[in-house]
Amino acid sequence: MTAGAAIPHFIRLEDLSDRQVEDILDLAARLKRGVSRAELAGRSVGLLFFRGSLRTRTSLVAAVQQLGGHTVNLTAASDFWELEARDGTVMDGAAPEHIRDAAVVMSKYVSALAIRPAAVTGSWEQERRDESIRAWAAHAEVPVINMESALWHPLQALADLLTLRETLGELEGKRLAITWTSSPTPSSPSVVHSALMAALRAGMNVSVAHPPGFGLDQGVLDEARSSAGERSLSFETGIGMDEATEGAHVVYARSWFSTETYNNPTLAATKVAAARGWTIDERIMARGADARLMHSMPVRRNLEVTDEVLDGPRSLLYAQAENRLHTQKGLLSLLLRG
Amino acid sequence: MTAGAAIPHFIRLEDLSDRQVEDILDLAARLKRGVSRAELAGRSVGLLFFRGSLRTRTSLVAAVQQLGGHTVNLTAASDFWELEARDGTVMDGAAPEHIRDAAVVMSKYVSALAIRPAAVTGSWEQERRDESIRAWAAHAEVPVINMESALWHPLQALADLLTLRETLGELEGKRLAITWTSSPTPSSPSVVHSALMAALRAGMNVSVAHPPGFGLDQGVLDEARSSAGERSLSFETGIGMDEATEGAHVVYARSWFSTETYNNPTLAATKVAAARGWTIDERIMARGADARLMHSMPVRRNLEVTDEVLDGPRSLLYAQAENRLHTQKGLLSLLLRG
Amino acid sequence: MTAGAAIPHFIRLEDLSDRQVEDILDLAARLKRGVSRAELAGRSVGLLFFRGSLRTRTSLVAAVQQLGGHTVNLTAASDFWELEARDGTVMDGAAPEHIRDAAVVMSKYVSALAIRPAAVTGSWEQERRDESIRAWAAHAEVPVINMESALWHPLQALADLLTLRETLGELEGKRLAITWTSSPTPSSPSVVHSALMAALRAGMNVSVAHPPGFGLDQGVLDEARSSAGERSLSFETGIGMDEATEGAHVVYARSWFSTETYNNPTLAATKVAAARGWTIDERIMARGADARLMHSMPVRRNLEVTDEVLDGPRSLLYAQAENRLHTQKGLLSLLLRG
Repeated sequence: MTAGAAIPHFIRLEDLSDRQVEDILDLAARLKRGVSRAELAGRSVGLLFFRGSLRTRTSLVAAVQQLGGHTVNLTAASDFWELEARDGTVMDGAAPEHIRDAAVVMSKYVSALAIRPAAVTGSWEQERRDESIRAWAAHAEVPVINMESALWHPLQALADLLTLRETLGELEGKRLAITWTSSPTPSSPSVVHSALMAALRAGMNVSVAHPPGFGLDQGVLDEARSSAGERSLSFETGIGMDEATEGAHVVYARSWFSTETYNNPTLAATKVAAARGWTIDERIMARGADARLMHSMPVRRNLEVTDEVLDGPRSLLYAQAENRLHTQKGLLSLLLRG
Repeated sequence: MTAGAAIPHFIRLEDLSDRQVEDILDLAARLKRGVSRAELAGRSVGLLFFRGSLRTRTSLVAAVQQLGGHTVNLTAASDFWELEARDGTVMDGAAPEHIRDAAVVMSKYVSALAIRPAAVTGSWEQERRDESIRAWAAHAEVPVINMESALWHPLQALADLLTLRETLGELEGKRLAITWTSSPTPSSPSVVHSALMAALRAGMNVSVAHPPGFGLDQGVLDEARSSAGERSLSFETGIGMDEATEGAHVVYARSWFSTETYNNPTLAATKVAAARGWTIDERIMARGADARLMHSMPVRRNLEVTDEVLDGPRSLLYAQAENRLHTQKGLLSLLLRG
Repeated sequence: MTAGAAIPHFIRLEDLSDRQVEDILDLAARLKRGVSRAELAGRSVGLLFFRGSLRTRTSLVAAVQQLGGHTVNLTAASDFWELEARDGTVMDGAAPEHIRDAAVVMSKYVSALAIRPAAVTGSWEQERRDESIRAWAAHAEVPVINMESALWHPLQALADLLTLRETLGELEGKRLAITWTSSPTPSSPSVVHSALMAALRAGMNVSVAHPPGFGLDQGVLDEARSSAGERSLSFETGIGMDEATEGAHVVYARSWFSTETYNNPTLAATKVAAARGWTIDERIMARGADARLMHSMPVRRNLEVTDEVLDGPRSLLYAQAENRLHTQKGLLSLLLRG
C-alpha cells in the first residue's frame, strides 16, 4: 500500500508490495478451497457507486458478507448527490458537499470505503488524473479501495493474477497477448492498464494489439516500458491481433475507448466504426501456445469473441470472475486485519 | 422443483411436488409460531430487480436475514445494464452482457438468485414465454427463484395457500371466486394464474369473473381446465362478479391487463375505461358463504375494494402479506438446505 | 415517545421524555467508548427513502449493523412507487397503494421503520403538517423513526445534544447562536427547528439570525417562545449574524429556505439571491465566547463557512456527524429493547 501512508489505500496494484500481493493470493487460494474467516465480524464496509456495476458490486458485497461483515451500499444517482473534488473552491455550483467532508464523515461509520468514481466530463488529460478517487484517499480515515477508476482496476488485477497462476503456474517468461476487441460501447482502458502492469511485474512478456488510434494511456505505456526494461522483458504495443497472439500462453481480450477521442462522441463513434472485425475466434486462439482466453467481462458475444471460444475449453472467463470473490476476501483480510 | 434438473429452480408452483409444498407450508407455520432457523448463516442470496417491488423485496430480504443470511440487492435501472436473453446473436446492440454469462458469474458469488424480470416490449405471445427468467434458470448454477414473471408469481401462491389453509382448513371442495377489479394501471395476470392453478391443485372449485376481453392467458386456461377435469372440479371463467361470488368461501380480487391489447396502450386504455364499476363492496361479499377477501396488493382503495371491506373482518390481505415472509423462509430452507 | 401510544414512535425529539433522552445520550457515550451491544441480533430494520441521503442512510445502516441487526433499504425512485396518504379517497390516481396498507405490511417484516418522506408539492401550510410521516406512524405496528420531515430532524437533534454536552459540559445558561448561511439550494428548516427546541429544553439561551423573509416556521416559533418563557431563557429571532453571535458559546450554521416562498421557485430564487454574504468566517467566530461551530452538513465550503473555520479547531462538524452513529445506536437500543 502507498509507502509512508498511515492508512493503507488500494488505488492501484502498485500500492501493494510484492510480499503483500503474495499474501493476498495465497490467502485467496486457501479461501477458495473452503477455508473460512470472520475477520469482518461486526464491521461495515461502505460501497459508493458513481457508475453501474454487476460483478464488482456483487462480488465485493458477497466477499464482505462471507467474512462476517456487512456492507452499506450507496448509488450516487438515486441515493445522494454530486460531490466537489477541488480544494479551495467557493462551492456555489451543483455540488452541495465536498469529498473531503464526505470522506471524513463516512470514515466515522465504516471500516473501509470502496469507490467507483464517475467518469469526468473533460479531457483525457484531466480524467487520467483520477482526482476523485485520490481525493477520497487523501481525506478518508479508513482504507479506500478503488472499484475501477479511469486509469486502474486493481481488484480485477488481483483476480487476473490468481487466474494466471492457477493456469500457468510460474509466470516468469510466459507470453501474454492483450488485444482490443470490437464493441459499440468500449470501456475505459483501466482493466488493460492494470493487467499490463501486473503481468510485467510478474515477469511476463507482453504484446498489445489494437487498431490505429487506440493506444493505451501514454503515462502507463511509459511505466510499462520502464518496468519491462528493468526486467529485460519484451513489450510490444500497437501491433495486429495475429502478430500479438503468436505463441501467446494467454490472450487477454478487451474493448477500450480511444484516449485520443475521449469526450468527442462523434469522432469516437467514427473511430470505433472504422475498427471492425476485431473478433477473437478459434483461428486466432490457435496461433497461441495452447492459449487460454481471459476477459474481465461484460463480453459481447460473437462481436468481441465467438460463442465457440467462449463456451469452449480455452475460456478462463468464469474462473477470472470467480477469483474476484476470493482475491477480494484476501485483500479485505489484509487491509482490515487487526 | 423441475423434474430431472440438477438444480432446484422455482419458476412456477408446479416446480414443487405435493410433498415439497406440504413441507414448505408446514415449516412456514412453525416459523410463524416463532421457531427459529439459521440455515442461511454465512450465505448470500442475490436479488435482481428489473421492475419495482415493495412487498416482495422487503419480505424476501427479511426472510433471508431472519434465516441468518445476507442479501445482495441489485436494481437494474440504477445498478447495472440491459442483458441479452437470445442465444447465438451477434451482440452489437444495447445489451453489453448475456444472461448466460451473468447467470454463471452471479452463481459464483451467491447461494441463490431471485429474479423479477422486466416486461418485454413485444406481443403477449412473446411475453408469455418468460424467456428472461427461463434463461437465468437455464444457465445459473444455483437455484433461481421467480419474483414474478409475466406468467407466474409462485411466491405469492405459496403465501396464498397458507392463508387459505389457515382460513378454511381443508380446501377440497371449497369455492374460490377470482374476480377482476377496476384500476387505471392493471397488473400482469401472473398472480391470478398462480392462484388459479394452486387452488385447483388443492381441490377447490374455481370461478373467474372479468369484463369482456380480460380473459386469462389461453395456455393457462387450458392447463386449468385439464387440472379441473382430472380432479372433477368445477371451473368457470368469463362470468360476472355477482355470479362468480355466489356461495364463494373466498373472493380473490385483482386487476389484470387484457392480454388481447398487450403492448397497445391506446386500445388497452379504452378497454380499461370501458370496464368501470368492478368494485368489491359489502353487497358482493355478502353473496358468498361467510366469504373472506384476498388480494395480493397493492390495492387501490375504493376503486378495487371499498374501505369498508378492506378494514372489516372479511379482509385477509394483511395475513396474506405476512405469510409471504413465512412461506419464503420455508422455501429458502428447502431450496438451500445442506 | 408519544404519550399513551402503544408503539413508541420517534417523529420529533419531544416524543421522548427527559429521562429517555438522558438514557440515550448516556448509552451513546458508552457505545462511543467502545462498549458493544447486540440488541438487534436476528432483527431487520426497514429504511424508506423518498429523498436522497448520505449521512443519515450510512450512519443508520451502520448503527443497525453494529448492534447485530440487518437493514432493508428501499429507495422510492428506483424501488417502488408513489403512496397515498389521505384517508377515504377513491384511489384512481398515480398512487397504487395507500400508506396505511404499506405501513401494516412492512410492520410484518421488520422491527422498525425509518422514513425520510418526500417533499410535498403544495403550500408550506400543507407541508408543515408532516402528513406522510404521521400516516406511517398512525398505521405502523412497529416504531416509526423520522429520518427528516419538513418540520423536524430528531435524529440530528440527538447527535447535536451529545456534541453540545461533550463540548460545553453543563448546557444550562450557555448561549447558542443559530445563523442562516448562503446557499443556492437551501434545505428545509427541520434541522434548525429541532436544534432550537432541543437547546431551549436543555436550558440554553438562543438567538436566531437570518435575512428578512427567512423566519422559521410560525408554529415552531410559538412553541419556542413558550418553552423559553417557562424556563426564563432569552430567545431572540430575526436579528443579524453579528448580533446573534455576540458572546455565543456555539454557533450553529445552516441554510434554510423561506417558508414564505415555499413552492414558488422564482420568488424563492430572488429571495436567496438577495441574501448574499451570509458566510461564517473567523471574524464572526471571534465574536463568540471561545465559540465552536456546528453544522449538520452537507456544507458548502467558502459560501456558508470558510475553509479556515471548517478546517480549524473551532469546527465540531465531524464530531457531530460521528455522534449520529452513537446516538442512533442508543435510540435503537431504547426503541427496540425487549
